[in-house]
Amino acid sequence: MYRTHTCGELRIQNVGEKVTLAGWVQRVRNMGGMTFIDLRDRYGITQLSFNVEQDAPLCERARKLGREFVVQIEGEVIERESKNSQMETGEVELKAQGLKVLNASAVPPFTVDDETDGGEEIRMKYRYIDLRRNPLRKNLELRHKLAIETRKYMDGMKFMEIETPYLIKSTPEGARDFVVPSRMNEGQFYALPQSPQTFKQLLMISGYDRYFQIVRCFRDEDLRADRQPEFTQIDCEMAFVEQEDILRTFEGLVRHLFQSVKGVELPEFERMTYAEAMTKYGSDKPDLRFGMEFIEMNEIVQNKGFKVFDDAELVLGICAKGAGEYTRKQLDSLTDFVKRPQIGAQGVIYCKVNADGTFKSSVDKFFNPDQLAVWAKECKAEPGDLILVLAGNSSKVRKQMNELRLEMGSQLGLRSGTDYKPLWVLDFPLLEWDEETNRYYAMHHPFTAPKPEHAELLSSDPKSVNANAYDLVVNGVELGGGSIRIHDRDMQAKMFEILGFTDQEAEDQFGFLMGAFKYGAPPHGGIAFGFDRLAAMFGGTDSIRDYIAFPKNNAGRDLMIDTPSIISDEQLDELNLKVETDK
Amino acid sequence: MYRTHTCGELRIQNVGEKVTLAGWVQRVRNMGGMTFIDLRDRYGITQLSFNVEQDAPLCERARKLGREFVVQIEGEVIERESKNSQMETGEVELKAQGLKVLNASAVPPFTVDDETDGGEEIRMKYRYIDLRRNPLRKNLELRHKLAIETRKYMDGMKFMEIETPYLIKSTPEGARDFVVPSRMNEGQFYALPQSPQTFKQLLMISGYDRYFQIVRCFRDEDLRADRQPEFTQIDCEMAFVEQEDILRTFEGLVRHLFQSVKGVELPEFERMTYAEAMTKYGSDKPDLRFGMEFIEMNEIVQNKGFKVFDDAELVLGICAKGAGEYTRKQLDSLTDFVKRPQIGAQGVIYCKVNADGTFKSSVDKFFNPDQLAVWAKECKAEPGDLILVLAGNSSKVRKQMNELRLEMGSQLGLRSGTDYKPLWVLDFPLLEWDEETNRYYAMHHPFTAPKPEHAELLSSDPKSVNANAYDLVVNGVELGGGSIRIHDRDMQAKMFEILGFTDQEAEDQFGFLMGAFKYGAPPHGGIAFGFDRLAAMFGGTDSIRDYIAFPKNNAGRDLMIDTPSIISDEQLDELNLKVETDK
Repeated sequence: MYRTHTCGELRIQNVGEKVTLAGWVQRVRNMGGMTFIDLRDRYGITQLSFNVEQDAPLCERARKLGREFVVQIEGEVIERESKNSQMETGEVELKAQGLKVLNASAVPPFTVDDETDGGEEIRMKYRYIDLRRNPLRKNLELRHKLAIETRKYMDGMKFMEIETPYLIKSTPEGARDFVVPSRMNEGQFYALPQSPQTFKQLLMISGYDRYFQIVRCFRDEDLRADRQPEFTQIDCEMAFVEQEDILRTFEGLVRHLFQSVKGVELPEFERMTYAEAMTKYGSDKPDLRFGMEFIEMNEIVQNKGFKVFDDAELVLGICAKGAGEYTRKQLDSLTDFVKRPQIGAQGVIYCKVNADGTFKSSVDKFFNPDQLAVWAKECKAEPGDLILVLAGNSSKVRKQMNELRLEMGSQLGLRSGTDYKPLWVLDFPLLEWDEETNRYYAMHHPFTAPKPEHAELLSSDPKSVNANAYDLVVNGVELGGGSIRIHDRDMQAKMFEILGFTDQEAEDQFGFLMGAFKYGAPPHGGIAFGFDRLAAMFGGTDSIRDYIAFPKNNAGRDLMIDTPSIISDEQLDELNLKVETDK
Repeated sequence: MYRTHTCGELRIQNVGEKVTLAGWVQRVRNMGGMTFIDLRDRYGITQLSFNVEQDAPLCERARKLGREFVVQIEGEVIERESKNSQMETGEVELKAQGLKVLNASAVPPFTVDDETDGGEEIRMKYRYIDLRRNPLRKNLELRHKLAIETRKYMDGMKFMEIETPYLIKSTPEGARDFVVPSRMNEGQFYALPQSPQTFKQLLMISGYDRYFQIVRCFRDEDLRADRQPEFTQIDCEMAFVEQEDILRTFEGLVRHLFQSVKGVELPEFERMTYAEAMTKYGSDKPDLRFGMEFIEMNEIVQNKGFKVFDDAELVLGICAKGAGEYTRKQLDSLTDFVKRPQIGAQGVIYCKVNADGTFKSSVDKFFNPDQLAVWAKECKAEPGDLILVLAGNSSKVRKQMNELRLEMGSQLGLRSGTDYKPLWVLDFPLLEWDEETNRYYAMHHPFTAPKPEHAELLSSDPKSVNANAYDLVVNGVELGGGSIRIHDRDMQAKMFEILGFTDQEAEDQFGFLMGAFKYGAPPHGGIAFGFDRLAAMFGGTDSIRDYIAFPKNNAGRDLMIDTPSIISDEQLDELNLKVETDK
């Protein structure tokens, strides 16, 4: 061992002990006859002191140390003259008696501080330096803790962690697969799993009635800011259960994690159908930390001569409590907000309820105070409140109003803090119709079961079939989702048919599952949680990248190891592959 | 919930309770007016009874159930007339009052019994049925337990589990990589990791001084019987440590696992250098459950006129205690054994020490009793023992004698039972010379540090340099191995040079690591354990495949999902790839 203690360990009771520390030089301060060094490791920082009068050569060597040098220090623990109550080791310092440089360091490309001066790209390239910073270290510690507590809970509930293969089979349904050429099977490929979905179902069929796995998944998607080509799931499945059993079991998991990792007691998990969520909030993952529910205003605003409303399929209002004092400038910026291409509204109509009960709206020309009073009544707007109205095509206006509602929630400070509002969203539609490809897609995945009472509708009116599918949403973030699965072979065949599979395609791609359904498949269902996102939520930020040790950038590149990269012709030959770049 | 209890749960104290069970029909027995069904789930078997006099229609339906049907049964727990003490639920049975078939089953292609009638191939194809059998279920339960206890120990020792990427960079050093074409980066590829080696070293450089991960690794090797293209490692690394710290830490892990999972207290871990292991046992993973050390006999057997010995570089003997009664036939079969192509000896010479102290050898023509008495003395052979001798080229004869020693150990019953002999093999050579490619290869990997006292020899005599590299061997099985790593940039550059890398190649492939060494790399080292093999050893068998839920066969195929398989032209186009099968 290069050390007797870590840099986070020494306390006043260690005074007088001879100890050895090892770590990185955080900073060197020369104060007249003294030199002080902050020595850092994963566990904390300890101050080292060098006295030029007592040992000039040692002090001289200490002064030459640069930031991020790795050193080993022997010395005596002494009580500090000026204590630092901000540091856990702040009552003591190490009076250095020996110094060994274990490794030098070039000047790092950015500072290793909580607030660094390094830009995103350079920090990605030097990720091994960035990971030394406290915020990232705490994120990875949090992630480790979450994994430990997840496994503790699941093991305690008799779930078995079972590893499923990473080299599986490509299926065109769903997102795009990453594929892996097989050298031993010429012209053939494995695929990396988008999730262990079929394997966990097979495990249910094998009788492992409580399975889980913290597992890597892969999707070759065009990346958006917050997506990674590889990501981690807590993947779970249970047999002989109904939806209610799954909801309770995993409510328990999430409750345990909040309790054990954050010390937070979650309130009761609310429940809402997909239809209700869309009607009230225009989103299948509403943030319930605040109200501001949608009010459908068609009846009270149409046929009053205002064309925008009259032509609209849907007119929606929300009441922003206490925003009645919004200035012209603030209101204009709301208009700019909804007109952004990502949102795409034509504009927003407002109506202020003034302190004296009068109204001021952007449509005063078309609506008189009595009419505006009806708006206020419908929207439950009181003096000091602001009514915001959007109009247009139903599904678009719901999405736009969802964005506006969230923006108003943020502006009014209703979405911050340590308030957690968990919500189960239930009864998702089984299918969604895609205009472009002129076919149905499974909203969750092709293995999701219709609600038993809707099974009859599968042939006659597929669009109206709901599924026993559920999402867990906390504060507007989808943490996980799952469903009760089909366990009947005929039902699964029917489902593939609806999704446009020929019998041959179904057999080629999912023959093993259809086969398994022949040999005693129990009723089952499950759920998967996005582990990166869960960690980010626990850490209190949005960026999952900060919770992954070695993430990729938006082009799917690892800037540190510089991959993907070209491979040798010899490798390509062995795989019987040719790269065709000029097409 | 489809059940109130599992099939392994009911006991005599539950008598009188109304319960619901769900599970698979193990077997149906009709005994006159009664029908008995063994209902199975992951937790056990419960007997169901149907009485034709009390409920003929129900009994009739029960009689029609086939093996592996999934059923739900309501009934009353009653005391059995004839108890079965072999079963945990053997004191009770469930008097059935309701029966619901949750899913039918075709006749399974093999029996779901501890000893099945299914061959290897069909069981691989129907793995989901094979996994229902107790032996496989117990293996997966064992594996789960091992993972849980590994994490418990490591977390308790302040190790952080940190996930490293699966989409990394191909490097030609070591075994062959699986590669993954990148769609977003035309003509470029990721590689799947053979181990997280460089990432765990970067984590040390980042200050995470105790890292571990239970992680999947990938090697595109020509598969042997006991290899899988994907396998699992317990991967570990520590900073600010010397070899001794690592040995102690992981001796602790292995001790904890044997204790908590098997209830076995391991004896002290022996230690032996690589050189000693090769000299005494002809193997770097000797089975120490028995002695039978090699005796070098050149001095006492050469120049006595027996050409085989005289021409030999090395003559080795072992003394098989108590095998002096071996028959002609047994001795002949030993000759056959060593002449097998995998072993490749010309034959084996024996010398029995008879009960009366006389000798009987296969070389009586060349060696008189006095000379054989010297053999016996050197080999510490006593009346009743058998001396076996091999001669030839040194390195070959050591390997052959290793095989013969293990065979004799097996034949004499010295390698069975629940005896565990852990051993650290230390001081492996750093490099091995390959005649074919005329270059050095790293014996462990290119990041392994030479022993400090040998560092000087790296330029002058690379072959004689030993490494701080170590393997953990239990009963002749290598469970894990690791080393102290290079943390000095110049040393790493020197190492790449010795391994024949140009500066450019070193930079292209390991530039990120060489870069990281510039910014304060601490001394570090680590170890990795083969998790599949560990599970197999705990389970008491050799076949790792039985400890993997969904393994691949020797051609790297998953027979159940039928992969690898062809992918669509569209997929190939998107990846800018062409398969060239006719070369």
